[in-house]
Amino acid sequence: MTDCKFANDADVIAFARDHSGVFQAGANLGVEEIGDGNINFVYRVFADDGTSVIIKQALHYIRIIGEGWPLSQDRIRIEAEALMQEAEYCPDLVPRVYHFDANRSAIVMEDIGAHENLRHALIARADLPVLAEQLGRFTADTLFHTSDLYLDAHRKKALVARFINPDLCKITEDLFFLDPYCDHERNNVNPLLWGEAEALWHDAPLKLEVARLKYRFLTCAQALLHGDLHSGSVFVCTQGTKVIDPEFAYFGPIGFDVGSLLGNLLLNYAGQAQLPGTDAERAAYQAWLLQVIRDFWTTFAHRFAGLMAAETRDPSLNLPLYHEAFLAEVLADTIGYAGTEMIRRTLGLAHVVDLESIEDGQQRALAEGLVLRLGRSMIMQRERLGSIDALIALVREH
Amino acid sequence: MTDCKFANDADVIAFARDHSGVFQAGANLGVEEIGDGNINFVYRVFADDGTSVIIKQALHYIRIIGEGWPLSQDRIRIEAEALMQEAEYCPDLVPRVYHFDANRSAIVMEDIGAHENLRHALIARADLPVLAEQLGRFTADTLFHTSDLYLDAHRKKALVARFINPDLCKITEDLFFLDPYCDHERNNVNPLLWGEAEALWHDAPLKLEVARLKYRFLTCAQALLHGDLHSGSVFVCTQGTKVIDPEFAYFGPIGFDVGSLLGNLLLNYAGQAQLPGTDAERAAYQAWLLQVIRDFWTTFAHRFAGLMAAETRDPSLNLPLYHEAFLAEVLADTIGYAGTEMIRRTLGLAHVVDLESIEDGQQRALAEGLVLRLGRSMIMQRERLGSIDALIALVREH
Repeated sequence: MTDCKFANDADVIAFARDHSGVFQAGANLGVEEIGDGNINFVYRVFADDGTSVIIKQALHYIRIIGEGWPLSQDRIRIEAEALMQEAEYCPDLVPRVYHFDANRSAIVMEDIGAHENLRHALIARADLPVLAEQLGRFTADTLFHTSDLYLDAHRKKALVARFINPDLCKITEDLFFLDPYCDHERNNVNPLLWGEAEALWHDAPLKLEVARLKYRFLTCAQALLHGDLHSGSVFVCTQGTKVIDPEFAYFGPIGFDVGSLLGNLLLNYAGQAQLPGTDAERAAYQAWLLQVIRDFWTTFAHRFAGLMAAETRDPSLNLPLYHEAFLAEVLADTIGYAGTEMIRRTLGLAHVVDLESIEDGQQRALAEGLVLRLGRSMIMQRERLGSIDALIALVREH
Repeated sequence: MTDCKFANDADVIAFARDHSGVFQAGANLGVEEIGDGNINFVYRVFADDGTSVIIKQALHYIRIIGEGWPLSQDRIRIEAEALMQEAEYCPDLVPRVYHFDANRSAIVMEDIGAHENLRHALIARADLPVLAEQLGRFTADTLFHTSDLYLDAHRKKALVARFINPDLCKITEDLFFLDPYCDHERNNVNPLLWGEAEALWHDAPLKLEVARLKYRFLTCAQALLHGDLHSGSVFVCTQGTKVIDPEFAYFGPIGFDVGSLLGNLLLNYAGQAQLPGTDAERAAYQAWLLQVIRDFWTTFAHRFAGLMAAETRDPSLNLPLYHEAFLAEVLADTIGYAGTEMIRRTLGLAHVVDLESIEDGQQRALAEGLVLRLGRSMIMQRERLGSIDALIALVREH
């Protein structure tokens, strides 16, 4: 394993100067470490004239833990290649990659500093008028164009091989589908929710459906997923959206990406009820969130259907009846994976600020209990709901 | 592309002597070309004392066509590695690999000359008392042990990458799932069946289900399949079975392998009605074939269930309810893929001697019509049948 860590600020600056192509010759450059993630090192290199780039470096271990938790450096190659793949279809929705350096395990990319983390924006009840459309377009366009519906069979299989991503997939396999359904030491359970958690660990019908979803995650190579599409991987401003951090990218079920976003919107929905503000403010934002969910799915489904109709290359898959059935299956997966995201963010290792910022344990338990029950219903009913409106009605019932 | 073709008999003999380890030093060796396949070169090298080996060589084109039809030589590496993988679980059911030589694109392996091709044995109404049990064991043991139920997540994904097999998969993708469902120039249709063929090409509900099965073939990386498990890839004698030629191996849906065998048994069943012999002989052999089908599935399902109960490593997949659901899904896939095998052997490019040996076109059309209608029913009803006995009842109805 190479230790290619930048030696000092000058090293980072020289690397940015050599590999970005954005700075004026002789410009005076500064650097700051901005990594608020846990796994990698992230630097911002900037010039006096406002020009800047981001450098992301992956070492052979997890940043906040150190060499005791090794992690393949191949993840940074996968992230760079996934960003470039996504940019083929949605260049406006991902940071531009200026350079990927395999020896340094580093990407030099566009600074999207004008955007803020979607999770924080939702907690602050930001109005994001283009969010639903842009997320729908991102998922439809990246997922359709990396599927067998569009890609030549050889090209698809070559991509599957390039995006074999066992280290990062294993994290999802465990944290989404294993830990929350048993009394695992990695879990993080609100003591006030212990009864509900214990009931869930013995819920055989639920565990059957989660096993099905896990097996699809393990075996169903439908399209190149982002693979970690929670609100923390989306950056927003009023006019635009940037999707970052696809280091979990691999070929998996389309509904996993779409469902991860949906689940995060519902996590925020559940948290809103206990966040500060007037009842009217809460209710208005929750209504807006449900509208975002509807518009996000509708945009995704309409674009995906349009792409299937216009660009499916394999004639044996280019059948209107099949396209309908395909989207119905993606909706079922989406609802199911959203449910697993909601449950793992409540009982599992990694919680979300949307709920964690509710300081009072009782109130947090109320929101968490709602998430658990809604997540369970979504997993159990995913094949019966049949429409985004039926899902929204289910949310309103809870 | 390397042209590593053996220059002459002496070259083949020297290669066998150097790489098999089975011949006495100084033994006098002879060679004969025995390739009755169409794609590769196959030689038998033998000593006076009866010792012999098989050498299989894959060139960068199809043997009977020549350089005009290129085909990746990687197929011989895949065959060698698949044989070795299968030997880990069923050493008695595959020819032993003595040596694989990547530079020569050649495998030196055990001579299974005492066995005959299963297709010919079935046409000759051979009694094969261990066939059903051995095919059930082969499929259960090879497929379970290369699935996510058994393999560590990293190991599974590394194997998926090693068995990416686009050239050979493309042949199946086209010949099974595309050609037979349209008026394709590669098709080979009995003129007396033209009306039924045309009806099938416009059968939208059938084409929907075939699209679903094709998409599972493209995306569903459940286990390392043999990938070409028709009766011509199985060699038999009274005491034993050898499964050969896994050059189509890749990670796909378990039911594709099981269904390929099932479909070939049913193709023979349909052909029996028009083959020479008394009515009583025909009826007895058809009854035996249905018993083989029942015993084959039952052995597969019992062994697979036993392996799931005893050796599933992932606790989140180790649930009795999930194991039941898993086998139900494999049965549905099995019946569906068997149906596609039956239809493609009737309308598609590559027919089977079980039906082609019926010289009278009218009589052949009767058998082919039965195959088409039964194949269609199996595809359409695969998720509803629910048991092997229900399938056998369906066969009897036709």
